[in-house]
Amino acid sequence: MLKIGLDGIRTFLPPEALDFGAALSSLRTLKSGTGAGNDYLGWVRLPETYDRDEFSRIIAAGRRIWEQAEAFVVIGIGGSYLGARAALELLRSPRCNEAKTSGPAVYFIGNGISADDISEVLDLVRGKNLYVNVISKSGTTLEPALAFRIFREYLEHTYGKDGARERILCTTDRARGVLKGIADREGYETFVIPDDVGGRYSVLTPVGLLPMAAAGIDISRVMAGAAAQMAESLAECEENPSVVYAAARQALYRMGKKVEVLSYPGENSRFLAEWWKQLYGESEGKDGLGIFPASCELTADLHSLGQYIQDGERILLETMLRFAHSRRRVEVPRVEADEDGLNYVAGRDYDEIFACAAEGIRRAHISGGVPCMELVADRPDEETFGALVYFFEAACGISGYMQGVNPFDQPGVEEYKKNMFALLGRN
Amino acid sequence: MLKIGLDGIRTFLPPEALDFGAALSSLRTLKSGTGAGNDYLGWVRLPETYDRDEFSRIIAAGRRIWEQAEAFVVIGIGGSYLGARAALELLRSPRCNEAKTSGPAVYFIGNGISADDISEVLDLVRGKNLYVNVISKSGTTLEPALAFRIFREYLEHTYGKDGARERILCTTDRARGVLKGIADREGYETFVIPDDVGGRYSVLTPVGLLPMAAAGIDISRVMAGAAAQMAESLAECEENPSVVYAAARQALYRMGKKVEVLSYPGENSRFLAEWWKQLYGESEGKDGLGIFPASCELTADLHSLGQYIQDGERILLETMLRFAHSRRRVEVPRVEADEDGLNYVAGRDYDEIFACAAEGIRRAHISGGVPCMELVADRPDEETFGALVYFFEAACGISGYMQGVNPFDQPGVEEYKKNMFALLGRN
Repeated sequence: MLKIGLDGIRTFLPPEALDFGAALSSLRTLKSGTGAGNDYLGWVRLPETYDRDEFSRIIAAGRRIWEQAEAFVVIGIGGSYLGARAALELLRSPRCNEAKTSGPAVYFIGNGISADDISEVLDLVRGKNLYVNVISKSGTTLEPALAFRIFREYLEHTYGKDGARERILCTTDRARGVLKGIADREGYETFVIPDDVGGRYSVLTPVGLLPMAAAGIDISRVMAGAAAQMAESLAECEENPSVVYAAARQALYRMGKKVEVLSYPGENSRFLAEWWKQLYGESEGKDGLGIFPASCELTADLHSLGQYIQDGERILLETMLRFAHSRRRVEVPRVEADEDGLNYVAGRDYDEIFACAAEGIRRAHISGGVPCMELVADRPDEETFGALVYFFEAACGISGYMQGVNPFDQPGVEEYKKNMFALLGRN
Repeated sequence: MLKIGLDGIRTFLPPEALDFGAALSSLRTLKSGTGAGNDYLGWVRLPETYDRDEFSRIIAAGRRIWEQAEAFVVIGIGGSYLGARAALELLRSPRCNEAKTSGPAVYFIGNGISADDISEVLDLVRGKNLYVNVISKSGTTLEPALAFRIFREYLEHTYGKDGARERILCTTDRARGVLKGIADREGYETFVIPDDVGGRYSVLTPVGLLPMAAAGIDISRVMAGAAAQMAESLAECEENPSVVYAAARQALYRMGKKVEVLSYPGENSRFLAEWWKQLYGESEGKDGLGIFPASCELTADLHSLGQYIQDGERILLETMLRFAHSRRRVEVPRVEADEDGLNYVAGRDYDEIFACAAEGIRRAHISGGVPCMELVADRPDEETFGALVYFFEAACGISGYMQGVNPFDQPGVEEYKKNMFALLGRN
C-alpha cells in the first residue's frame, strides 16, 4: 500500500548501518508490551480491536451532524485536533468550508488563546445551526476548557439547555475528570478516549473519528486502510516499511542528521505534516535527544527552505511523501502562440509534471548532501490516510525504542503549564 | 515600535559574546553598498524612495479590484506570494474569505504543482467576477507560468480578450522577460519588480503591495510603519533592534544553536512565520552554514513541538513574537456553577491570559536550556506589519554579513529546476 524508497540514502550509509536487529527487537518489544510506556499501547491493535458499538454510535452521530449542522466546531488541542484536521484537509480540502456543497462548515478552535480566532469563529457560526464536539481527556487543559466555556454558553443562550444538550458531544475519559462530570450531569452524549491510547496516537479513536464522520468522511474505509497497514507494519521482517523507516532515520540520526524534513506534495497535506511533527517530536524529543521534526511543502517551499536544504548546514535528512495520483486530473492546455514557451508540457497531466519535479528535487537534495527517503502512496483517499497514520505510529514506536526513550510519555509538556497557572494565580 | 528582549539569553551567553562591533560593521556595509550582493540593496531605502506614481497606480488598481472583483487570484511562488499572504492573514484573517462582508475572495495559486489545488480554485471562482494578478520576474518559473496559462485561458474564454485584459494585472520586470513581453503585446497593466530587490525582500514593492491593496489593506500605513522602523533599524548604535537580533542569533549560532524556532501567537501570524522562514533560510542557508528556520504556533504547538523544545537536543534557539493586544477583545465569562473550575480567570481578557501563557512558556524553555528572545509589538495592524518586515529584512542583511555569506543570492534554488526541466524534456 505504502512504498518506502531508500535509494536516496544509500550513498550516505553503508547497508549495515541500518540496524535491523535493533529495529525488529523494538518491534517485538512493542508487540509484547514489555517496554517503557507499555500502559499506552492500545493503539497497536486498535484497527482490529476497536469497539464496534461505539463505532456505530460515531457513524450515527456523524451522520446527524452532517445532515443537520450548518456549522460544526471541534474544540481540542494537540492530539485532540491535529489528526482530524489532517484528515479533513487531505481528504476534503483546506478550503472545504468554501468549496463544500453539503454538510457543515468545520472550525477547529480551543487550540490556542487567541481573542481574534475565537471571536471570529463565534461570528462565523452565529445564526447557523451549530454543533460542538469538545475533546479533552481531563477537561482541565486551559485552551479547550476556555473555548468550551464560551461555546457552551453561546449554545445554551441560543438554543436553551435542551437545545444545547442535543448539540454538544463530548469525547473524554470513560469515567473520570471534569469534562466527564459535566457531560454526565448535563446528559451530553459522550465518546471514550481509551485509557491506553495517548493523545498523539488517538486519531483512530473517537478523538479523530467523530470529526471525520461529521465532515462526511467514510471512517470505515479509514479503519480498513489502517488494518491493512497494521498487517504490514507488525510483520517481523526487514521488508516491513515501518521497520525500514525507523531503522533508516535512527542510522541517519547517529551520523549527525538532527533535523528531519518531511516534504509533502501540496497544501492538502500540510496538516498531515503537522500531525507527524507532534507524533515524532513528542515521542522522541526527550532526554536531550531526538530528531527535530520540520516540514517543507512541495514545490512551494523549494522557493523558501529550498536554498537551505540544498546548501545549508548538513544536519538534515529528508523524507519525501508523495501520491502517485491526485484526486482531480488537470491537463496543461495547448496554446498555439506558445508565448510562455510551455507547449513542451502541453497535454501532460499535472501529476506527471509533479512527479518529474519531485524526482528532480530528490536528486538535487541528494547531490547537495541530504539523504532523502521516499514514501509513496497511490492517492490521497481514506484507506491511504488510515494506512499513513498506522505506518507512522508503528515506525515511531519502533524508532523511539531504538533511540532508548519512552515514546509514549511527554513530561516536558507540563513545564509551561505549571508556570502559566502560577502566573494566572490558580490555586 | 518593536521591542526586543534579551533577558532570556543572558544566562546562556556572557554580554561580550554579542559582537556589536561586527554587527555595526555589517550594518555599515549594508548602508554603504560595499558588500556581497550589493546589486540587490534596493530594499534598504525603499520605505523612503519608493516610486510615488506607481504607488498611486497600485492604490487605484487595488481599489478597482476591491470594488469590482468577487474573486481575486494571486499567482506567484516564494517571495511572490509569502509576503502578501502574511499580510492578509495577519491583518485580515486566515478565514477572511469566509468572514468577509465586502471585497473579493482571495486565492493564492501557482505556488506548487497540485492538480487538486488548481482545480478546486478554478471551481471556486467560476461564475464570479474574477481578477488575476500574476507575479513573476521572468515569467518562466514553471509553477506560476502553468497557473497563469490556465487562468488566462479561463479568463479569455469567459470574458473574451478585452474582458481578460481588464482583469489581468502583471507584476514583472521593468523591461525584459517572457511575462513582460506578453503583457506588452496584450496591453495588460503592469507593475514593476525593481531590478535591485530580490524576491524575498520584495514585499514592500508592487509584489506585495498590490495584493494587499486589492484585499482592502491600507498600504500607506504599511509603508509608514516600514519607514519608522527603517529609521531605527539603520541607526548605528547598540540599541538598534535589528542589530541586537542579528548579533544575538549569530552569537547563539556560534555556540551550536543550529535551529531557530520562531514562536508566533496564533493562526493569524502563521504566514508571517512562513515569510520569515524564506527570508532567513534563503539568505543564510549556504556554503554549508546557516541557522535552520522553523516555527511554532503558540499555544497550539506547545502540545506538539513543545516536548521537543523543552527536552530534546539542545540545538535550538527561540524567538518569541507576540502582540500586546489583539484586534478583538474577548473576556472569559463567569459561570456561577463553575463546573470547569475556570472562574479564577473569569472576567479576564484573553490577551492577559495569553501574556501569562507566553511568559510561562518563555521561563519553561529557558529553564529547559533553550535561549529565548522576545519580540513584542503593540498590535497586529498595518504599521506593525510594515515595521516587522523592515526589522527582519535589516536584521537578515546584517546577520548574513556577520555569518560571512552573501545574503542576497540563492544559487541552490536552481538545482531542482535543472533536474526537473531535464526530466520534463525541455530543450
